[in-house]
Amino acid sequence: MGTFTERLARRTRTGPDLLGGILALANAHGVINFSGGFPEPSLFPTDVLGDIARRLIDEDPQVALQYAPSEGIASTREAIAGRIEATDGHRPHDRELLVTSGGIDAVTLIAKSMLDAGDLVLVEEPSYLGAVSGFTAFDPVLKGVPIDDEGLDIDALKRVIAQHKTPKLLYTIPDFQNPSGLSMANDRRQALVDLCREHGILIVEDVAYSQLGFDDIARPSLWSLGPDVVVQIGTFSKIFFPGVRLGWAAGPAEVIAPMGVAKQNSDQCAGALGQRMLEEYLRAGLLERDLPHARELYRSRAARITKALEEHANGLATWTVPGGGFFTWLRVPGVDTVALARETDVAFVPGAGFFAERQDTEHLRLSYSRISEDDIDTGIARLAAAIRAH
Amino acid sequence: MGTFTERLARRTRTGPDLLGGILALANAHGVINFSGGFPEPSLFPTDVLGDIARRLIDEDPQVALQYAPSEGIASTREAIAGRIEATDGHRPHDRELLVTSGGIDAVTLIAKSMLDAGDLVLVEEPSYLGAVSGFTAFDPVLKGVPIDDEGLDIDALKRVIAQHKTPKLLYTIPDFQNPSGLSMANDRRQALVDLCREHGILIVEDVAYSQLGFDDIARPSLWSLGPDVVVQIGTFSKIFFPGVRLGWAAGPAEVIAPMGVAKQNSDQCAGALGQRMLEEYLRAGLLERDLPHARELYRSRAARITKALEEHANGLATWTVPGGGFFTWLRVPGVDTVALARETDVAFVPGAGFFAERQDTEHLRLSYSRISEDDIDTGIARLAAAIRAH
Repeated sequence: MGTFTERLARRTRTGPDLLGGILALANAHGVINFSGGFPEPSLFPTDVLGDIARRLIDEDPQVALQYAPSEGIASTREAIAGRIEATDGHRPHDRELLVTSGGIDAVTLIAKSMLDAGDLVLVEEPSYLGAVSGFTAFDPVLKGVPIDDEGLDIDALKRVIAQHKTPKLLYTIPDFQNPSGLSMANDRRQALVDLCREHGILIVEDVAYSQLGFDDIARPSLWSLGPDVVVQIGTFSKIFFPGVRLGWAAGPAEVIAPMGVAKQNSDQCAGALGQRMLEEYLRAGLLERDLPHARELYRSRAARITKALEEHANGLATWTVPGGGFFTWLRVPGVDTVALARETDVAFVPGAGFFAERQDTEHLRLSYSRISEDDIDTGIARLAAAIRAH
Repeated sequence: MGTFTERLARRTRTGPDLLGGILALANAHGVINFSGGFPEPSLFPTDVLGDIARRLIDEDPQVALQYAPSEGIASTREAIAGRIEATDGHRPHDRELLVTSGGIDAVTLIAKSMLDAGDLVLVEEPSYLGAVSGFTAFDPVLKGVPIDDEGLDIDALKRVIAQHKTPKLLYTIPDFQNPSGLSMANDRRQALVDLCREHGILIVEDVAYSQLGFDDIARPSLWSLGPDVVVQIGTFSKIFFPGVRLGWAAGPAEVIAPMGVAKQNSDQCAGALGQRMLEEYLRAGLLERDLPHARELYRSRAARITKALEEHANGLATWTVPGGGFFTWLRVPGVDTVALARETDVAFVPGAGFFAERQDTEHLRLSYSRISEDDIDTGIARLAAAIRAH
């Protein structure tokens, strides 16, 4: 304990770094690692990135190597707006779009712009608390709203709203949710937008995995249904690569503007080199070239993990069947999954960290995104054995 | 005014975006722009960056394009530690060093880790409020401590400490300060470290411009004098390039550890591609190759702006003579510099924004770092004419 340990902020002193401890275990030798939301590196477009980087460094250093405007480079924002128009059927205006340093940065900027201490923030239960922690740094009160197989439970949300002072924000991942892999039913999307509009609640829609669906079902984004009441946040880490920190926020101008000011006070801007690399990649149509292959690879791994679970874990656990994205979510009745994580050479994230309010010990999240299909088989067999032994 | 304007956080509603407005004016056609702290782009090492980027993309994509650990890539941290050892004569241990997404990110991470609402933070008066705003997002009470030609006034600091409950943090830029261009005298450095150690105040030392001195005078870093009581924050934006967001924090392990956790909740990590590019650049000894040329270019521009001020502004204003860095700081008695900024086709930053407490209207900051020497002459002549006309 050093001199300053007792002088840390309350938010720092109260939160044990459970996740950090688990992730440290994940990198031990011989461990099969189902823990992080890492994209598969063989999908990184290395065939074109070297040329793109060299060209920008040679021909555009005054932009690509310099500070960028806080809201993002104008031409990059235009390319991202075009991409959003293609996926969402609706194009953000210039003042409705901000380039961020990834998805969690976007959460942080919303929180810094919107939250006073004690404000109420609603989150899905379970949800991705890595993102939710972007809110908690600004000392809100978190309230969980349950999800079921069709996503956020709208009736439960109505009860929460009736019982509490009006929430300021609601955070949701409508497509291939982290950690559950499940999606919000289309009829609930419109109902959610209508309800939040009625109560003046800003919806924060995280579309991290939306482009990585395994089927052709149309899932309208919440932002496309209610651009007046939704801030959509997205990341390019899952569909481009994470080694440049890049994402976006699209939403009402009166929210995007203070987020841009908040960005000046955070990291000033997203890195210009990454912005210009992304822009060149998008403008050349390369994301459209590469996405089908990524979907197919993750679809195949998802199918393999489902098959392996059926083979090895029947009767030991239940699990979700993801329609896209990186995750499946297990319930292991009667097993303390934090203890389980310490007892096996398979790494995963215990479920406790995904619940804002509820105490839970028997869930866990498996990511299949960066594991070969053979290792998926081996890992699930090991996990099942560990559950049996527990 | 949209629906959510009245639901913004208090910190958002109270701060008018004065700086944004001024910076917008700076890019108007025909304006000579002394406003931002931009490095000169001809100094960006484009002769080597294209090769470095291509090699990393081809040979190291699993590291250079993937998520990085929150504390930074191990090999990059080692290279940065080596660099700090070379400049400061003291090497941070592994747990004393964090890679950040630039300097203001480091400020934000310290604030998130250390500050509860209402905590007292001391800042130099004037100081770089762009960085100070990283603290203000976490709702501290700011108190100014005056500086003079030898930097922070230690006696004034003693009086402030005696009058108030113990401050938690003190933010200082000891070398070629932003905005004043002045440096802290060496005898004051040891006195400051001793005083803060005695009172348990954490010093946040910003060394943004420390490598860009115009002379050979040794200026020991505060961190080298008191690694137990100082967090040193630095940026590679001024000596490498800003288009990848990269900086560092070196300090007591008990402060660096929660900063790493806070980084998971901010942007997760600094971009891996930029980290690896910097590492290759440092390991090849290229920073040592390039720094002398950078110092000489900025020294020459500083001399030119001083000469131009002597020629055009004698009797109208007084100014500092910078010993390094990017800035000179003018006092224009009786002139409202915010009004002046709107009346002239020379862009600068009015001084009001650099004072945390004191009301000031008659200072302004000029940056000479990205302006040709001819434009410096023309710009200062225009500025003097505008002051005369005012």
